[in-house]
Amino acid sequence: MPTRREFLWSTGALLGPALTPARAAQPAVASTDAGRLRRRLERLSQFGRPAGGSFADGVSRVAYSDADVAARAWLLDELRGAGLSSRIDAAGNIFARLGGRASAPPILFGSHIDSVPSGGNFDGDLGTLAALEVLETVRASGVATRHPLEMVVWAHEESTAFGRGTACSRIVAGDLKAGDLDQEWNGLRRRDALRRIGGDPDRIDTAVAAPGAWHAYLELHIEQGGTLDAAGVPIGVVQGIVAIHRYDVTIDGVANHAGTTPMDIRQDALVAASQLVLAVRRVAGAREGRQVGTVGRLDVQPNSPNVVPGRVTLSVEFRDLSLQVLDGLGEAVRAEGAAIARDTRTTITLRLASTNPPAPAHAGVMAAIQASAAQRALTARVLPSGAGHDAQMIAALCPMGMIFVPSVGGVSHSPRELTRWDDCARGADTLLDTVLALDRRDSI
Amino acid sequence: MPTRREFLWSTGALLGPALTPARAAQPAVASTDAGRLRRRLERLSQFGRPAGGSFADGVSRVAYSDADVAARAWLLDELRGAGLSSRIDAAGNIFARLGGRASAPPILFGSHIDSVPSGGNFDGDLGTLAALEVLETVRASGVATRHPLEMVVWAHEESTAFGRGTACSRIVAGDLKAGDLDQEWNGLRRRDALRRIGGDPDRIDTAVAAPGAWHAYLELHIEQGGTLDAAGVPIGVVQGIVAIHRYDVTIDGVANHAGTTPMDIRQDALVAASQLVLAVRRVAGAREGRQVGTVGRLDVQPNSPNVVPGRVTLSVEFRDLSLQVLDGLGEAVRAEGAAIARDTRTTITLRLASTNPPAPAHAGVMAAIQASAAQRALTARVLPSGAGHDAQMIAALCPMGMIFVPSVGGVSHSPRELTRWDDCARGADTLLDTVLALDRRDSI
Repeated sequence: MPTRREFLWSTGALLGPALTPARAAQPAVASTDAGRLRRRLERLSQFGRPAGGSFADGVSRVAYSDADVAARAWLLDELRGAGLSSRIDAAGNIFARLGGRASAPPILFGSHIDSVPSGGNFDGDLGTLAALEVLETVRASGVATRHPLEMVVWAHEESTAFGRGTACSRIVAGDLKAGDLDQEWNGLRRRDALRRIGGDPDRIDTAVAAPGAWHAYLELHIEQGGTLDAAGVPIGVVQGIVAIHRYDVTIDGVANHAGTTPMDIRQDALVAASQLVLAVRRVAGAREGRQVGTVGRLDVQPNSPNVVPGRVTLSVEFRDLSLQVLDGLGEAVRAEGAAIARDTRTTITLRLASTNPPAPAHAGVMAAIQASAAQRALTARVLPSGAGHDAQMIAALCPMGMIFVPSVGGVSHSPRELTRWDDCARGADTLLDTVLALDRRDSI
Repeated sequence: MPTRREFLWSTGALLGPALTPARAAQPAVASTDAGRLRRRLERLSQFGRPAGGSFADGVSRVAYSDADVAARAWLLDELRGAGLSSRIDAAGNIFARLGGRASAPPILFGSHIDSVPSGGNFDGDLGTLAALEVLETVRASGVATRHPLEMVVWAHEESTAFGRGTACSRIVAGDLKAGDLDQEWNGLRRRDALRRIGGDPDRIDTAVAAPGAWHAYLELHIEQGGTLDAAGVPIGVVQGIVAIHRYDVTIDGVANHAGTTPMDIRQDALVAASQLVLAVRRVAGAREGRQVGTVGRLDVQPNSPNVVPGRVTLSVEFRDLSLQVLDGLGEAVRAEGAAIARDTRTTITLRLASTNPPAPAHAGVMAAIQASAAQRALTARVLPSGAGHDAQMIAALCPMGMIFVPSVGGVSHSPRELTRWDDCARGADTLLDTVLALDRRDSI
């Protein structure tokens, strides 16, 4: 979408952002209501909770499931109860707007409430309910903002359904290909899935937003990694969402009898694969920085205890904010693969299967987040997001920023996912302050 | 079956057999008919051949399949055509007997004609049709043997059907447990499978043979490994069939997000598994000898490109003639596993899942094979069998020996399996001479 990016800010954020404090803000609005936020998180956790389970048992609220549909209905009720009017766009995303001048572009903020199977109660839920807190807190304060404040609940963020994530923010960003809505998953067509959550696949074009449609986009989210928790830092200022390079690797050796084939003449594809797994780890750890490298999928053929493996297929994934770093990692693993193939007398083929471009956060939005945290005497750390988020899609439409709060032990996509209530409240307050700080600016 | 082994010979063969030549034999019988053997191998290869394929495309003649049933019917026809009477025992094994005194125990020899899916044309087929050659050649010579010569076609040798191999020689050796015949495989009950090939599951006890039922057992087989081929040696004298120790290994790490989990805090079960795969290879190669170690099966959970693997299960298999060597390999890999678990902060559990005892060949039978080869000026090498064979079952009943012939490139269980026609003929002649040499002995 090069035309959509024409207005884009410089990518200086990538090169070590200079976080200049925003002008000193006068707190015109009180803090969000930590008790109400917690109660809503606990209530939301009941939609998709395992039968007979408790909050600690996590949630399975896959997009378009009955639990997802029920949770969305509950949330629409909450919005009504808070006196907010809402709409559902053709892609199934929920929007609720408050105040502001009709001529000014809204400030958008929110997250999602769908989950992975056996997921946790904070991934998405926190950012969504904190956005509602912001609207309610501002309204209760009587403060009139310049820009309309708009909350969003993105539909279908996790990649469980239809094997793709950030699916409905992607539509808003204009990235929908012909036939996408005819995809099937577990017997469900995607256009019918959208209808289940109040979307309108026949008018899907109406969901697409124009560049500049919003003044800025903010998303509060749990870190999902362990950096903030380990450092004891309550607020993370996301510098960008990492790019992903994924390789499909095929290793061909020779399947042979495990009893009759002497060790020295084997061409064992799993021995070669094991060396490659360790090479990926070594390569990813060999340079300074936060890049990660993972072999998450590995399949052996014929996968029988008494046969020397003849073929292994596996995935190699590298993530980093810098495409240059990713290219270097790819080159390094290719070189290691070539050496391993020679040593093991196997054939190793690496194919770059998919690339996700990086989505840098806007330096001005980052500065506003940093200033808001400082104002509440919260330490903050700049860090990349290793996970994908809807923010990455909306970054193509307006200045984007994300606020992270600590995940205890770095655990996510698990019932053990946990963010302390205090940290939830700190994140919500930082979101509130940042929204108001951005509202005071004509340009970001 | 300890009682069956009471009469057993010393296991001196294990400790470096002294191959004393048998007394100089006078060749009373001509050689087998190499052309007839080849024609029969080519004819047999048509049962289970891929549609439109040729000899080089191998064979799928899984036990109890239509191809197996048809091949057995053809073979019974060949026996009739050769003027030999045959019988099928209750376990489905085919026997055909020639001459000898009624009071003397027969000399038994043969192999099998079932195959793995997409197998080759020599595994089992050669030993079976060479056995028929021996009977025909002896009969044509007019020589009267002291012992009856008995050919056998063992049913169901490969482990494809019902997940178990050497199934019908096992019954003859008395190793049949209650319920074994009620096992199901692809909707087929084992007792009904036996009926398909002329067996009689209701009288299965009649198939069991008493210790000493035969004077000796001989089996000609392709090596399936590459030792003889690489050395240019035409005859292998099997010193025994290796024992197998198989371990089930579980590695527990922590599944986590591949994007948000920094490299240094990961507890990646696949990284640990890769180190273990390489340790198995290193341990197996670290001592002199022919022992082998294989990780043939490996399964990753959740096996998704974007998730750090949380659990890996895998099989470790060691094979050697010596239980002491196997115990040492097991201990070594346990120690390596403990170190890997510490380094990777994972939990590694090794469980000895199954053990197959070794089956040593009889030193006297080995000596007879060696002498027979020498008599035809064929070089011979003593080597273990890394693969299982029906001989391993019958070793519990009488003195056992096996003759190996070279597998080109060591390839087996593959359409590319190949043993040169000359080598097939050399093997058949060595079988013939060894049968006759053993016939001249009162005790072995």
